[in-house]
Amino acid sequence: MEEIIDSKKPEFVVTPWEVSGKVDYDKLIKDFGTKRIDDGLRERMKMHTEKMHVLLKRQFFFSHRDLDLILNDYEQKKGFFLYTGRGPSGPMHIGHLVPLIFTKWLQDKFGVNVYIEITDDEKYVFKREREWKEIQKFANENIADIAAIGFDPNKTFIFKDSEYIKNVYPLMLKIARKINYSTVKSAFGFNEQTNIGLMFYPAYQAVPTFFENKLCLIPCAIDQDVFWRSVQREVAEGLGFKKAAAIHSKFLPPLTGTEGKMSASQAETAVWLTDDEKTVRNKIMKYAFSGGQATTEEHRRLGGDTEKDVAYQWLSILFEPDNKKLRQIHDNYHSGKLLTGELKQILVDKINLFLKEHRENRKKAEKLVDKFMYSGKLAKEMWNKNYE
Amino acid sequence: MEEIIDSKKPEFVVTPWEVSGKVDYDKLIKDFGTKRIDDGLRERMKMHTEKMHVLLKRQFFFSHRDLDLILNDYEQKKGFFLYTGRGPSGPMHIGHLVPLIFTKWLQDKFGVNVYIEITDDEKYVFKREREWKEIQKFANENIADIAAIGFDPNKTFIFKDSEYIKNVYPLMLKIARKINYSTVKSAFGFNEQTNIGLMFYPAYQAVPTFFENKLCLIPCAIDQDVFWRSVQREVAEGLGFKKAAAIHSKFLPPLTGTEGKMSASQAETAVWLTDDEKTVRNKIMKYAFSGGQATTEEHRRLGGDTEKDVAYQWLSILFEPDNKKLRQIHDNYHSGKLLTGELKQILVDKINLFLKEHRENRKKAEKLVDKFMYSGKLAKEMWNKNYE
Repeated sequence: MEEIIDSKKPEFVVTPWEVSGKVDYDKLIKDFGTKRIDDGLRERMKMHTEKMHVLLKRQFFFSHRDLDLILNDYEQKKGFFLYTGRGPSGPMHIGHLVPLIFTKWLQDKFGVNVYIEITDDEKYVFKREREWKEIQKFANENIADIAAIGFDPNKTFIFKDSEYIKNVYPLMLKIARKINYSTVKSAFGFNEQTNIGLMFYPAYQAVPTFFENKLCLIPCAIDQDVFWRSVQREVAEGLGFKKAAAIHSKFLPPLTGTEGKMSASQAETAVWLTDDEKTVRNKIMKYAFSGGQATTEEHRRLGGDTEKDVAYQWLSILFEPDNKKLRQIHDNYHSGKLLTGELKQILVDKINLFLKEHRENRKKAEKLVDKFMYSGKLAKEMWNKNYE
Repeated sequence: MEEIIDSKKPEFVVTPWEVSGKVDYDKLIKDFGTKRIDDGLRERMKMHTEKMHVLLKRQFFFSHRDLDLILNDYEQKKGFFLYTGRGPSGPMHIGHLVPLIFTKWLQDKFGVNVYIEITDDEKYVFKREREWKEIQKFANENIADIAAIGFDPNKTFIFKDSEYIKNVYPLMLKIARKINYSTVKSAFGFNEQTNIGLMFYPAYQAVPTFFENKLCLIPCAIDQDVFWRSVQREVAEGLGFKKAAAIHSKFLPPLTGTEGKMSASQAETAVWLTDDEKTVRNKIMKYAFSGGQATTEEHRRLGGDTEKDVAYQWLSILFEPDNKKLRQIHDNYHSGKLLTGELKQILVDKINLFLKEHRENRKKAEKLVDKFMYSGKLAKEMWNKNYE
């Protein structure tokens, strides 16, 4: 009996609090009831954005809900707004930046407002051993990293849940009273041991989708879909609001392999925004899971496998947007002309350049944080609003 | 089988959201694990208060937790503070004022700070059909009634949960993450259909018990005990705080009989603070459950029963503090000398005098509301505090 039960263990798990195993993204589209972003929709996006962002072109953003309705509203000059977030559970790695980089690109192309929720409350109730001050330190560091991405300081509002709570508490309650325990139990796997703070939190995550009387588009990793599927889209219309649209990304594979996602508890799985050049080099050389052969001789003869190679995957997803150059790397690796160490070096250089620019931008953005949070045009408007 | 189950139906129910049946207060003391306020403790109170308030003397406040520890701390000059509240689900009746009147007396006698929580959030999530504006209207009216009681404007902080949330949200989360669903399920009877707003709320009700680094004494009706028993006293010490003490009242019996408590949904069960003199007279004459006989002749011969007579009960609990006068009423009613209409008239006069004074005080207190909520000494201090 036990063996039969064991054999039913899912091959992968995707929840807001756990991603493990080899994720089957086609199955997620089916299970979650989202839609694949097909060629037609990508072309329609391109009509408005001229170029296509590498994250869209290479289908890292692969799934959506109602992206077509967003484009309808945009085309009919009704507009829309963007909403994404960050849970400040620790320092940020490159994977954390991906949805934010994409959100920034969307803002540039569509000229719309962006709301970025820093879920300090959720991280505090989820990690029961953490001190509040610790979460706040991470929140402030994360906000500095987000500010570095280059959002429009007058069209972007970055807020900590704990600071903005007073302005939205009645709205949060309005959402919360529509959500029964049975819903969060089945949606999030909450049980008798779940604390009542974590149980209340899904109401807050729905709040920003109602910030404007327009459609809301949420760029996020697919593990967050349950918040929209089971909470926001279930209650929105009953409360006189609109269902949120979403555009979902895959997970940047951890350095150590193509399963699961990068993890704060295993430093070697990720490249952190604070990693210096040497650390990046050592980490990628040592840990990046390779699709190459065991010896140089064998590699020259048999070639490498880009499907398995994490360095190649990272180049493909984000760091080598040029199709021709990527094709060349691909072909050279498969032919054995490009060795694993050489392939890794290409990524090392790309990442170190990216991080150098990020550090410079972060420094420059220090004085912008206040605009994003309090004194920019949108931020000021938001602090004067109260949502019921 | 069904009959057997039916026969187990409890004779009375006491929860924060329901009081029904003939309440057995001795059983509550046993079930809840509180202590009776005995003669010794009453005498010890009297040492500090000179006179004894009628609500204490006549044992309407009948039960406690750690009231002895409060007196220890007071006697050792460590001090304590008072905390009570009001759920703004509608207009207030006389029964709602009782714990507040007693709290005011304690403040006068011990010279301590009082915190009064207006639980607009809880009432909004509990009454799912209510508009936020409606709850706010009741909250503001209730606050005006509470201000009329005569609290010290520099030692009293009246706050709406929705307004003070930002100052306490981290502390609320700290409490919430210590409380599992299993706890609120067994403590409050929450189930699959309970909304996640109501489920989170018990964390807020515990917050004010940690406002000062002193013992907190909570005057409240006994139905609120579960908040202290199952939540506050369970988590306090683990969070580095002190367990709250409490002093519990019975329920002012509804006009219509000695079972349950006064109910907003049955206007005839209560005397509302807005009832005019004629309404009070009509209501008491028509609805006050009588311990008298069916005819005057019979009453003269057999006498009335004060145990059953609600008018007499109200006089005894609050409106006739003079022992001698109450004794005379008692004896005259039992002998048949005092008729039911005459007994009721005594209560009508007392209540109309009380309400007249209340209305005058409420008018005078209008300008004090701002002090209690924002600009008084304690209120100002509280708005500058943030609790983690």
